Amino acid sequence: MKKGKLIIISGPSGAGKSTIVRALMAQSPGAFFSVSATTRAIRPGEEDGVDYHFVTREAFQELIRNDGLLEWAEYVGNYYGTPAKPVLEKLEQGFDVILDIESRGARQVMDKYPEAISIFVCAPSFEELEKRLRARGTNTEEDIQRRLLKGRSECEKADMYTYLIINDDREKAAAEAAAILTAERCRNKDHLSVLKGE
Amino acid sequence: MKKGKLIIISGPSGAGKSTIVRALMAQSPGAFFSVSATTRAIRPGEEDGVDYHFVTREAFQELIRNDGLLEWAEYVGNYYGTPAKPVLEKLEQGFDVILDIESRGARQVMDKYPEAISIFVCAPSFEELEKRLRARGTNTEEDIQRRLLKGRSECEKADMYTYLIINDDREKAAAEAAAILTAERCRNKDHLSVLKGE
Repeated sequence: MKKGKLIIISGPSGAGKSTIVRALMAQSPGAFFSVSATTRAIRPGEEDGVDYHFVTREAFQELIRNDGLLEWAEYVGNYYGTPAKPVLEKLEQGFDVILDIESRGARQVMDKYPEAISIFVCAPSFEELEKRLRARGTNTEEDIQRRLLKGRSECEKADMYTYLIINDDREKAAAEAAAILTAERCRNKDHLSVLKGE
Repeated sequence: MKKGKLIIISGPSGAGKSTIVRALMAQSPGAFFSVSATTRAIRPGEEDGVDYHFVTREAFQELIRNDGLLEWAEYVGNYYGTPAKPVLEKLEQGFDVILDIESRGARQVMDKYPEAISIFVCAPSFEELEKRLRARGTNTEEDIQRRLLKGRSECEKADMYTYLIINDDREKAAAEAAAILTAERCRNKDHLSVLKGE
């Protein structure tokens, strides 16, 4: 059976990654959106298994030791990572898997799975990014500044991704994401077997 | 200014290349469909500059000597080739250029322009291909057999193309071609400059 596609989405907070993820999910029946594991404390409004898999440091370190993570990083004293098992199972079953991860993790996944499709999503400008973050109205000024700083640093890594979507229009960005997936499915190596079977 | 994209379309006669070409032209305002030059005699119903540029052997050999062809081949005693000048001019002006050429020529173009987008179009089966050729009703039995033989030999070269479109449904095939062009326009190397300008 044909394996699913592993799709990496990265980009600054406020760039509109969720638009892209939704477009890809709509384009790919049964697609699996990977939920990261973390050792940080659960926050009000968050749900275990939805926002993150909240695990203990011991459990996370056990995953590291057993090569049970596709990628991981430590950030402000907490671990974050992508459990490998559910991702690999879904791919084997023929379903596409979407990872919404940061550039450090993306680098690790690209090294392990060079066939992964990598998409960097950015806003048309940093001014626009700031405007979108402020429009959310849910972030403190400190949080906004932290996200912007992080966003700039993430954008410096954008050239390691295969695709870049400049999200200046939600519908256009969604169409581009869908087109990338369609085009990737037309890649020759994926279905030359069909041709040889003629 | 951003250069246009060079798009190579190949595939057996009857695979539905014209559907793909039309879809690409519709997706790309101002796109240029390259008309080949040939030394063979013009046939009834053909138009110079539309079906081919009909030229003398001397003129063609002059083009060969002056590196004036993107690709060329001799076939049953006649020369066929793609004049380089109009193609390169259009690309420089930012317009996409579509080449409908055979695998021998495609190889030459890929070697000269590795950034070319290459798409092989095939029917879902050789039975279907034969059915389509017969349905045209304009070909002699000998012509059909010659096209089928040529088609099989072309399909053996399919794995050198980046993309493969299996044309089992005209609308799906057209959508795939359009998606390939959209996705290729999202390739990172194409607009990282935009990002750096943020």
